[in-house]
Amino acid sequence: MFPLLRGTAAKGTATCLRSIHIRNASSQAASKGRVVFSGIQPTGVPHLGNYLGALRQWRKLQDEAAPEDTLLYSIVDLHAITIRQDPAQLKRWKKEMLATMLAIGLDPHRSIIFYQSSVPAHSELMWILSCSASMGYLSRMTQWKSKMSLPDDASPLDTSSKAALKLGLFSYPVLQGADILVHSATHVPVGHDQSQHLEFARELSNGFNHIYGPILSQPTTILSPAKRIMSLKEPTLKMSKSHADPKSRILLTDSRDEISKKIKTALTDSITGVSYDPETRPGVSNLVEIVYHLNDGAAPSCEAIAKDCQDLSIKAFKEMVADCIDAKLSGIRERYYEILNEEGGSGLRRVADMGGMNAAASAEATMEKVRDAVGL
Amino acid sequence: MFPLLRGTAAKGTATCLRSIHIRNASSQAASKGRVVFSGIQPTGVPHLGNYLGALRQWRKLQDEAAPEDTLLYSIVDLHAITIRQDPAQLKRWKKEMLATMLAIGLDPHRSIIFYQSSVPAHSELMWILSCSASMGYLSRMTQWKSKMSLPDDASPLDTSSKAALKLGLFSYPVLQGADILVHSATHVPVGHDQSQHLEFARELSNGFNHIYGPILSQPTTILSPAKRIMSLKEPTLKMSKSHADPKSRILLTDSRDEISKKIKTALTDSITGVSYDPETRPGVSNLVEIVYHLNDGAAPSCEAIAKDCQDLSIKAFKEMVADCIDAKLSGIRERYYEILNEEGGSGLRRVADMGGMNAAASAEATMEKVRDAVGL
Repeated sequence: MFPLLRGTAAKGTATCLRSIHIRNASSQAASKGRVVFSGIQPTGVPHLGNYLGALRQWRKLQDEAAPEDTLLYSIVDLHAITIRQDPAQLKRWKKEMLATMLAIGLDPHRSIIFYQSSVPAHSELMWILSCSASMGYLSRMTQWKSKMSLPDDASPLDTSSKAALKLGLFSYPVLQGADILVHSATHVPVGHDQSQHLEFARELSNGFNHIYGPILSQPTTILSPAKRIMSLKEPTLKMSKSHADPKSRILLTDSRDEISKKIKTALTDSITGVSYDPETRPGVSNLVEIVYHLNDGAAPSCEAIAKDCQDLSIKAFKEMVADCIDAKLSGIRERYYEILNEEGGSGLRRVADMGGMNAAASAEATMEKVRDAVGL
Repeated sequence: MFPLLRGTAAKGTATCLRSIHIRNASSQAASKGRVVFSGIQPTGVPHLGNYLGALRQWRKLQDEAAPEDTLLYSIVDLHAITIRQDPAQLKRWKKEMLATMLAIGLDPHRSIIFYQSSVPAHSELMWILSCSASMGYLSRMTQWKSKMSLPDDASPLDTSSKAALKLGLFSYPVLQGADILVHSATHVPVGHDQSQHLEFARELSNGFNHIYGPILSQPTTILSPAKRIMSLKEPTLKMSKSHADPKSRILLTDSRDEISKKIKTALTDSITGVSYDPETRPGVSNLVEIVYHLNDGAAPSCEAIAKDCQDLSIKAFKEMVADCIDAKLSGIRERYYEILNEEGGSGLRRVADMGGMNAAASAEATMEKVRDAVGL
């Protein structure tokens, strides 16, 4: 049984789908605690990399939060549409992501869990920040270039970019800044590759406050402790939903059988035995990393795990890795299907509605000050 | 007495400040009539050029509307902030614009009159449309160039643009498109210089509908019949709030005395008598135009008015022009101050709240379909 799902928090999650309460903006605004905000794209059931890199930390931040702290976790569907999406699939992916967030133990009575699109204030603040966001700064950011597979020195109006580049993809760092600032977030857990965006959010906040006074927060980064989990098929690339081969990733709801098959076919090498050396043995080292992070704190280091297993054949090691993954995921998997089916699916809808309303109240507390300062 | 303010419509305006009703989204969506939308920037009390070029037509469209038609008139404060504004002044300007719109006879029980910023769906749809709006197309539009006094072939990333150009100014045609499309507008009264923007709104609608099906409207232009009213000080330029000399424009609330002084010092020429020839006598011809348009339909043409006045000295002609303007504006002026003071200013607040709620319901009817189509 997955330990995170034992005890009161998991029970809390179950209860929440029935009894719902809405916070009010003033109590929110009066709180003096930390405000933690983070977002994840609705890509369906998340994979092990999402879990170890972000979601598990969200849960940890929730469990360790002081009573006066506010936590907001958003499924950022407005960001998802900067890339063309299939509408029916996007709806399904949103639901699956929400159900998984609850299944890992995020408690909608403690954390505000919501779809970004249910709070129009995100777009509203984005527009207001657009009016002071410099085109030059945005054109130097690298995200739109990497999404379009363009070199880092590409300009948005090069012949190669111009035809295909959409305003949404070019300007989404401003929306990302608004996501954070609209909730007056003080702490933002991010992956290593997102620190440029948080820097931009601070830039936007500074620019606004310089003109209108100290209205917007100055968020601080909480860097994820977990290293990146790599693809099982190309262990030099990050584990990702966009990789063509579904065997390259473990989903949090994969069955025991699927986990075994995927680990069995994971790319390793022909060296005998197990060792930890990400440079020369990226495939095996990635499996060691997975075991290390899943057993959070149980082993002193990846090297120690590799040493423990050094005499195992790769086949036996892979069986152990699959066992370990299944032991950690089986509780999440079970809870996931319970949640999806609860009250014929209406429990999940109610959680989304409650989260949307609480997030709207949180955003409104900031927007009242912003509108007043700008003169709207 | 200004005829537009006599009779039932003017009385209706007075009543509205006390009794308020909110439409609901479904009755709105069910209507099969035309949906007229137009917007005006909050620049304080509008001048004669705003009135003859736009506001008077809005009133006419309201009076001639079929019962099933919907009319929405927005004070577009989110557009105003693409240029740096003084917040206190912006708040005052919004109030003054709203009071003038009521004073000219727009009836908040018949037309939905609202501040753009009170309906976040405008920004929300703007974001969604951004995801299919091409950077190339936007960079070719001329509006941001003219606001920055750059040549028509400037690029947003030229050294001369890059440092100062903000995302808001660059992307505001998309917000302008969203303003129209979020209310499923079918008819948009515009000035001659705005047809490029309406074309872009149709482009955005086409692009969206091409991907998601026939959701957004295809708005048609209603071109203003009135020619542009020119500055009293530089009659080759449009009458404008941004001209340094306040004597270059007549405000709708100017006193009899102010009107006389401004017209007396209007730039004309040294030719004897009155004639209509915009090329060689722009100053005198502008005064003739003003009289012609104010007396809507009473004289067959500007030429006819000039012929009637041909033997007058410029001084006597100017006195006649001032009389004519005062006769048309005195009713508006009176009503304006009544409205501003009604119930210690709370009447105006109530009109804004009612308009905001009705506009939000109108926008929500479209946004429900948009969100569903996109998969949000």
